[in-house]
Amino acid sequence: MDKYEILSNIKSPADVRYLSDEQTAELCSEIREKLIEITAENGGHLASNLGTVELTVALHKCFDSPDDSIIWDVGHQAYTHKLLTGRFEQFDTLRKQGGISGFTRPGESAHDLFFSGHAGVAVSQAAGVAAANRLKGSKNYAVAVIGDGSFAGGMVYEALNSTGFEKCRLIVVLNDNEMSISENVGALAKNLARVRAKPEYYRFKAGTEKFLNKIPVAGKSLSRHLFKLKNALKHIIYSGSFIEDFGFRYVGPVDGHNVEMLCNAFNSAKMIDIPVLVHINTVKGKGYDFAENSPESYHGVNPFDKEKGESGSQVKTFSSVFSESLCSFAGKDKRICAVTAAMSIGTGLEDFASRFPDRFFDVGIAEEHALTFCSGLAAGGMIPVFAVYSTFFQRCFDQLFHDGALQNRKMVIALDRAGFVGQDGETHQGLYDVSMLSGIPGVTVYSPASFDELNHDFYNAFYKDDGVVIIRYPKGGQPSVPDAFLPSDKDYDVFGNADSETAVVTYGRLYTNLIDICSDNNCKLIKLNKIKPVPSDSVNAALKCKTVIFVEESVKSGSVGEQFASLLLESGFYGRFYHKAVNDGFIEQGTVDEQFEKYGLDSESLKKYISEILKG
Amino acid sequence: MDKYEILSNIKSPADVRYLSDEQTAELCSEIREKLIEITAENGGHLASNLGTVELTVALHKCFDSPDDSIIWDVGHQAYTHKLLTGRFEQFDTLRKQGGISGFTRPGESAHDLFFSGHAGVAVSQAAGVAAANRLKGSKNYAVAVIGDGSFAGGMVYEALNSTGFEKCRLIVVLNDNEMSISENVGALAKNLARVRAKPEYYRFKAGTEKFLNKIPVAGKSLSRHLFKLKNALKHIIYSGSFIEDFGFRYVGPVDGHNVEMLCNAFNSAKMIDIPVLVHINTVKGKGYDFAENSPESYHGVNPFDKEKGESGSQVKTFSSVFSESLCSFAGKDKRICAVTAAMSIGTGLEDFASRFPDRFFDVGIAEEHALTFCSGLAAGGMIPVFAVYSTFFQRCFDQLFHDGALQNRKMVIALDRAGFVGQDGETHQGLYDVSMLSGIPGVTVYSPASFDELNHDFYNAFYKDDGVVIIRYPKGGQPSVPDAFLPSDKDYDVFGNADSETAVVTYGRLYTNLIDICSDNNCKLIKLNKIKPVPSDSVNAALKCKTVIFVEESVKSGSVGEQFASLLLESGFYGRFYHKAVNDGFIEQGTVDEQFEKYGLDSESLKKYISEILKG
Repeated sequence: MDKYEILSNIKSPADVRYLSDEQTAELCSEIREKLIEITAENGGHLASNLGTVELTVALHKCFDSPDDSIIWDVGHQAYTHKLLTGRFEQFDTLRKQGGISGFTRPGESAHDLFFSGHAGVAVSQAAGVAAANRLKGSKNYAVAVIGDGSFAGGMVYEALNSTGFEKCRLIVVLNDNEMSISENVGALAKNLARVRAKPEYYRFKAGTEKFLNKIPVAGKSLSRHLFKLKNALKHIIYSGSFIEDFGFRYVGPVDGHNVEMLCNAFNSAKMIDIPVLVHINTVKGKGYDFAENSPESYHGVNPFDKEKGESGSQVKTFSSVFSESLCSFAGKDKRICAVTAAMSIGTGLEDFASRFPDRFFDVGIAEEHALTFCSGLAAGGMIPVFAVYSTFFQRCFDQLFHDGALQNRKMVIALDRAGFVGQDGETHQGLYDVSMLSGIPGVTVYSPASFDELNHDFYNAFYKDDGVVIIRYPKGGQPSVPDAFLPSDKDYDVFGNADSETAVVTYGRLYTNLIDICSDNNCKLIKLNKIKPVPSDSVNAALKCKTVIFVEESVKSGSVGEQFASLLLESGFYGRFYHKAVNDGFIEQGTVDEQFEKYGLDSESLKKYISEILKG
Repeated sequence: MDKYEILSNIKSPADVRYLSDEQTAELCSEIREKLIEITAENGGHLASNLGTVELTVALHKCFDSPDDSIIWDVGHQAYTHKLLTGRFEQFDTLRKQGGISGFTRPGESAHDLFFSGHAGVAVSQAAGVAAANRLKGSKNYAVAVIGDGSFAGGMVYEALNSTGFEKCRLIVVLNDNEMSISENVGALAKNLARVRAKPEYYRFKAGTEKFLNKIPVAGKSLSRHLFKLKNALKHIIYSGSFIEDFGFRYVGPVDGHNVEMLCNAFNSAKMIDIPVLVHINTVKGKGYDFAENSPESYHGVNPFDKEKGESGSQVKTFSSVFSESLCSFAGKDKRICAVTAAMSIGTGLEDFASRFPDRFFDVGIAEEHALTFCSGLAAGGMIPVFAVYSTFFQRCFDQLFHDGALQNRKMVIALDRAGFVGQDGETHQGLYDVSMLSGIPGVTVYSPASFDELNHDFYNAFYKDDGVVIIRYPKGGQPSVPDAFLPSDKDYDVFGNADSETAVVTYGRLYTNLIDICSDNNCKLIKLNKIKPVPSDSVNAALKCKTVIFVEESVKSGSVGEQFASLLLESGFYGRFYHKAVNDGFIEQGTVDEQFEKYGLDSESLKKYISEILKG
């Protein structure tokens, strides 16, 4: 018998609707089997997908996708959705170059309405779709599925606030698994916990209503108070809960692993003509013991042995070196604080958190607040370090401008995952920060090529530079750095033949791809250590060359290379200029190595590129 | 007797503390007089400042600034704060070049801890200061003053969520004037209205507690329910209100024009060891009939006659032309929707709102949601137009990237106030958008020089271009455009001597400053109509020139000029390149004309600049 007897026959969501309860249960178990099999093989998001199996099945039973829009926030929990919408056959290509994405992706299927990789956007997206449906006179539903972690981010509130009380067919499913990527933080988590702790919530509600309707009138004072109580209760329980304050009807909490109960909840929600929030409880990692017991380790996994579970490897990475470096500085300097937006594990702040709990702040997925909070810490005399992925740093552009650069107070941004990031694809690449930062006045940006240099740049940031200092470094480990390479106190270094008529200019980890090529071709290699502002002397070092080749791991438009070219030209440069960068566009998934190769930035391609230029 | 007998003697906040009640009342009236006098003279924010007179006096009576930090959100309501912190003498220079700022500005006074011009950041700033105070063992308070309008923005929730339940000396003053810049929108406004409508709120609370403590046990069912009721009530009334859900203690609502009651509230708040929100009610425009009756017109004013009030001038501006143009398109095309983040008046959407109410969405000060909501509207088949100021557009950089560009759905951004904006100063300039947008793949950016061209660009955006189209245009009116100038269907136009060895390249309104200069100097003028992507043919049109002069109203770093230079150089350009732009930095207040002059972009300066280059 086929291991995936039911699942392999699901060609579209319609096929899910006609399964019996027994078949549905069997389907869920086949899906879990498949999820474990493929993530063990390819890596990916496991725990969150194991938690949303029944939810996804129930959604596809109750809603008519793609006419009804099912919109997944962050999109990494949509594996089951992919399996049920005609992508079972391709599922073994998950996260591989040319394969299906680990996130929702419109090009892949009509059932994926949006690309999604950043948290907290789904309610806004669905609100827009629901408004459009209303304007078109369509009766279709827009359903946003959003995790509790996204509720720490402001966008969800903006969406609730501006959508509540509107007449439209909008259903928000709050998938409450008591954690987002790492442990949930903040006041809202406490509120959800409170609701969770009261399974009698709804029974109480029903009981109270009955009770209030038959309350006796026993003396003036009592009745007056009871009247108020009744109003207050109605007000508060029926319309005054946290969610209902926003003009959403609240349904829940519902057992998120019970398809029947989920369907009941969704079908009720469909009958209400104002926005509804359905609150469901799920268990991350459900059905796979290793993941259920340690969901954080199984949030995003590398390929693993499915019988033995994942073995947490302890490879030295830029993140881990940052972690050590930061703890070492913080041990000596009590002003140093660390701030993260729900990324303490990814950015390597766990050690800091346990060693300096007073000075550690996890604000939840709330980059805007994180940056401005740092500005406040700095105003109070602390030296805040905000550790954040390049792609998520986009969230606080305005705060960086308004509360960072303009205030000119000392704060440090540890910008992790800068450059190619591999399998997460279009929504997670770190190739845009250089360009994004180009126009922000007064900030300093470093781009270290090695672990030692990272450490050295943090020293500069803490004790030499003023204002906002950003240190950007890539995902993963250090490329092979020549033994002789040491961090320098200069803003740039020149390697190789200083008198050469050809200069190759670069920064960050590409240095290691270029050093031998330059040496073989007798060129000089100008390595920028500080990339903003572009060191003017580094331009002078290239000015007399006949050929300048700028190579960088960034989109081209707005890049350092363009600034360098412009400065060269303004300084009277008369030579030829070549610029190798990533031509503007969105970078699909693949391994980091595949991405380097695809964009011609691996050693082999660069060797060819440079020697062809030099041949003329 | 001096008109400002008391006010003129206030040299520091300490002087406010020792005034009698009568003197305090007199002080408030002198302050109002001064506010009206100076804004009538200089223009500025009037209604909001008239609303915060007593609040500011009370704050300076109860807190010890600058040791205690009083942090003004948006900062345009801090005029009284300025008057009480040693800036009375300079107050007539308000908003003038070299004078004191219309917003808080650190360089001006130790009492201004932050620059502030963008809404919703003060709680985050104050939370950071409060955390720093705690770490330092300081007993000082951090006080954030924030309007109800900012509560539509997500950052406030992020800050409340991550700060609530923390032990720190943080006081948030919610200045509830039932509107922010234009009428308040969204669910939260409804909630505040509900609280406002119940002056018995607190009396009820006290009464209920007494009542609950003496409740009789009358039968099993009743007592069980009453027990639950009691818990529920305690829970809901004492800790379960909207604000208290976030772990803040709630105090209010307080009459915001009664100094004594305000002081009582602040003194109570000072005794609580967790974060407190003090909810006060104020009247915008208080004490000046014209402003009180029409607070929106008196939000930001031009100089006016204080006896007769402001005369709303009907000058034709890019915003008003946009308004007409949009209504005309929307009348013919039912897909066109308009979205604003609380800026319907400033961006000229009022007509649209009244003519097409179904298709008009004011989401409150929530740019992040606005952009992603547009993405949803577009996914549903609408053509959304988000009208937003350049400086506030910074708020949704990531949403533009993730939910705009990456999704590649048709949406239009009407980017108002691009370029120099004049008196609002550092926090409001529109000189950064070009650079900010440089690295975002796939978006199209137009920069019209005239009203006709604006109209033409919107036509292109609606019916010719794909994906996200951004049309950036300046504050105010059209510069004098030559009669012969007509919108072109090309991405760039060449004026003047096409065979000239000198090319001047520009875009937007600077065209009008340059056209005569080029003609006088026999240069060709290349005017870019589309600035992203830079039209490659336009580069070819300059390639053979000996001298290329790029002139733009933008910061230099990451600008179009840099891209142009880089493209020239890559294409084998061998001439000289000159780049006139705003050297990176923050632009202080002054008139737009003064700013053009200061940065050498007015006709006179450009004439000199270009003729000096041509002299060699």
